Amino acid sequence: MNRSPVKQRRGIYAFILGGILLAMLFSPSGLIAADAAAVEAGHNLFPITFLWIAVILIAAKISSLIERVGQPAVLGELIIGVVIGSLYLFGIDIFEPIKTNYIIHFLAELGVVILLFQIGMESSVSSMMKVGVPSFLVACVGVILPMAAITYAVGPLLVPGLKSTAYLFLGATMTATSVGITARVLKDIGKIDTSEARIIIGAAVIDDVLGLIILAVVAAIVVQGSIELYTLSIIILKAVLFLGGGILIGTWLAPRLGSFFSKIQTGVGMKFAIVIAFGLVFAYIASLMGLAPIVGAFTAGLILKPVHFDNFDSPVFINDLKGAIKEENVSGRLAQKLDQVIETHSHKHIEVFTEHLGHFMVPIFFVLTGMQVKVATLMDPKVVLMAGGILIAAMLTKVAAGVAAGKGQRKLVVGIGMIPRGEVGLIFANMGKGLGVMDDTLFSAIVVVVMLTTLVTPPILSGVFKDK
Amino acid sequence: MNRSPVKQRRGIYAFILGGILLAMLFSPSGLIAADAAAVEAGHNLFPITFLWIAVILIAAKISSLIERVGQPAVLGELIIGVVIGSLYLFGIDIFEPIKTNYIIHFLAELGVVILLFQIGMESSVSSMMKVGVPSFLVACVGVILPMAAITYAVGPLLVPGLKSTAYLFLGATMTATSVGITARVLKDIGKIDTSEARIIIGAAVIDDVLGLIILAVVAAIVVQGSIELYTLSIIILKAVLFLGGGILIGTWLAPRLGSFFSKIQTGVGMKFAIVIAFGLVFAYIASLMGLAPIVGAFTAGLILKPVHFDNFDSPVFINDLKGAIKEENVSGRLAQKLDQVIETHSHKHIEVFTEHLGHFMVPIFFVLTGMQVKVATLMDPKVVLMAGGILIAAMLTKVAAGVAAGKGQRKLVVGIGMIPRGEVGLIFANMGKGLGVMDDTLFSAIVVVVMLTTLVTPPILSGVFKDK
Repeated sequence: MNRSPVKQRRGIYAFILGGILLAMLFSPSGLIAADAAAVEAGHNLFPITFLWIAVILIAAKISSLIERVGQPAVLGELIIGVVIGSLYLFGIDIFEPIKTNYIIHFLAELGVVILLFQIGMESSVSSMMKVGVPSFLVACVGVILPMAAITYAVGPLLVPGLKSTAYLFLGATMTATSVGITARVLKDIGKIDTSEARIIIGAAVIDDVLGLIILAVVAAIVVQGSIELYTLSIIILKAVLFLGGGILIGTWLAPRLGSFFSKIQTGVGMKFAIVIAFGLVFAYIASLMGLAPIVGAFTAGLILKPVHFDNFDSPVFINDLKGAIKEENVSGRLAQKLDQVIETHSHKHIEVFTEHLGHFMVPIFFVLTGMQVKVATLMDPKVVLMAGGILIAAMLTKVAAGVAAGKGQRKLVVGIGMIPRGEVGLIFANMGKGLGVMDDTLFSAIVVVVMLTTLVTPPILSGVFKDK
Repeated sequence: MNRSPVKQRRGIYAFILGGILLAMLFSPSGLIAADAAAVEAGHNLFPITFLWIAVILIAAKISSLIERVGQPAVLGELIIGVVIGSLYLFGIDIFEPIKTNYIIHFLAELGVVILLFQIGMESSVSSMMKVGVPSFLVACVGVILPMAAITYAVGPLLVPGLKSTAYLFLGATMTATSVGITARVLKDIGKIDTSEARIIIGAAVIDDVLGLIILAVVAAIVVQGSIELYTLSIIILKAVLFLGGGILIGTWLAPRLGSFFSKIQTGVGMKFAIVIAFGLVFAYIASLMGLAPIVGAFTAGLILKPVHFDNFDSPVFINDLKGAIKEENVSGRLAQKLDQVIETHSHKHIEVFTEHLGHFMVPIFFVLTGMQVKVATLMDPKVVLMAGGILIAAMLTKVAAGVAAGKGQRKLVVGIGMIPRGEVGLIFANMGKGLGVMDDTLFSAIVVVVMLTTLVTPPILSGVFKDK
């Protein structure tokens, strides 16, 4: 589309006008008074919830401009959440109802389930096998070190007088490296195909799984008040059975699912429904077994990972193209080349199904998490000290874990690559808050540490990696 | 993928095995006991709601097999909803909680908003202008006749003794032709490009809008108890202003939005968020103005209709293809042809954004609507008589409206094409039930009539049209 600069400027004016109209809508006095018919005609909470979803979506996407300065989008979503959640300090309290909106909380939870489903689909059983021993060692050391250091040293030292379960939860929040952020950074700096990158991603996947087992264990300890060896082993057994069983069944089931998907001719809708329902049912089964729903979603993702099937997205395009090629009687190298291009693109991965759903739901979780940070607590030097201490421990322990990468690998690179914490840590912190183990101070400190680990890693990692 | 028949059969076994496992999960005794940690660790309703969503998605998609016998998917969703909702009559009451699950009701409402947003995007201001006078006449006659006949004759005759507002609501449910079903049938029988088809689709679009205005008017009358000329004109004015204003602003805004979308480089996520938020904000504004949220969503869809922008879905494919063409030094007719194919497919319509979200949310509305049909009331000869009477009136009045198509058109074809009722009628019935105007008997009768109009039209229409 070729548009003159004048017309382009008009487009910008239109956008600004729209912004002003929206701002007037949000103003306390309101442009338009609510109508009695509308208020009484059904579920009052529903329309305003539509508005909150729109607000969160737009806020999240505006915040994603942070990617332009090399930071991951998740950081922007957290920051914009903190901003929106703190507006009440300046007398703007129209967004406060979001914090207690039950439906928004459900959509956030659904968002996390979809995200872990997606992360599972990024991981795959076979990729976990291939990365092998060094990844496993880095993951184990990288889980044990921060867990031990924070639970038994940094936690009691910096925040004395809490229950032992609080320190356990605090330690657990710092165990899992964020697969998403790590992979994103490595891709952005063009180093995704190095052996260090493969070890980092493998280890991040494994420590996600370890982290999820730790979550189940710690949550049970908190709820039941004490550590019973029987309960402990049951939970570990359940998690191992669930994940292990899922992986075993998955290895057997995935190619069959793929073949089944290729055969059914009911179109996109059916495949979409099967994929999503698969993730949701696993999330439910996990919760039935005393595991977090996200563990189930992750396992479902692992199982579905190898499932590919025929293209459904642009079959018309493919067909038109084939028609044109045939019509013109193309042969030889060009025909081969074109066939190859068509072949590459006429199979689509199952992940695309959750893509748009993820765009819709996932930011709700992170913005809502950001909104729950009480900025006032950050004025407290105690919180700043706490966050600083946890951050240093969280970084050093992961860098130390890099040593486990073994000979021939750049250990510092691996260690730094393991620093970013993200989704899983925040989910732990949320759950700890829900269980009453963590107070606002600790919660705020953890969110700040997670934000800082994602903020600090990209420049350091790209700096160290580029030195090579 | 070439798989041997044995392997294919194994895939089917795996699927059956999965079904058995799911069935055991649903069995009242349950395979796995819920864990205390899981139950206490947070929002109890959330995991089970994941399961309900999965159940509805799978049920809806299984029911869509009805398309293989030439019936629209929406009919299957309604029928499966009726089936699931009636299982309690046979002692199976595990699905009963779905009927009162607040989150499911919200997702259903969100589904309707997305559906009307999509229908709006299928309609467009310019297509409404082009179909012109005959469409407008058919629409008006097709709204006035059933409204008048059912409100003032069929209703009071068949169900004497109700409040006048109940008859009004009953008449209103039968005004709007289902754009989706009509267009789908015409497409399926390959007659989408005839003048009759264009008139039918145009009229169906217009009577949707008229129906939405009628809904606003009737809902206000019900809530306020009486017809005040002032209120009435205010509501009509609001609806006309909202829709007219939306269309005027939209005509001006759409190309600018398109140009804006082409310029921003933030990827799919941002565009997706803007599109969805646009629909949701309009839904909220409509509810602020006393209109149903769906009116807002429909208007937002109309506005966005002409917005196209650069392909974002398979840029890699397009680029690879361009590379291959360049590399092989293609020129002349083939190059031109390939360029043309690439050009056609490298712009994507904005609709794709809502497609997967629609797959997820929309069936929830129709399955839930089906679940609310009390089958027991259908044993009542009174309901059967009522449904029969309404059905005959609903069909005859639309066939009569076909006469307004004018000279040179096959009036019977147009009239029959207007018969299917769907989404909008069911939304009216739902709202009438929510407002307490319609009892279970009337509601069940309406759902049955809607089901029968969609069931009856495809065979009749294709029969009449093929005679040509």
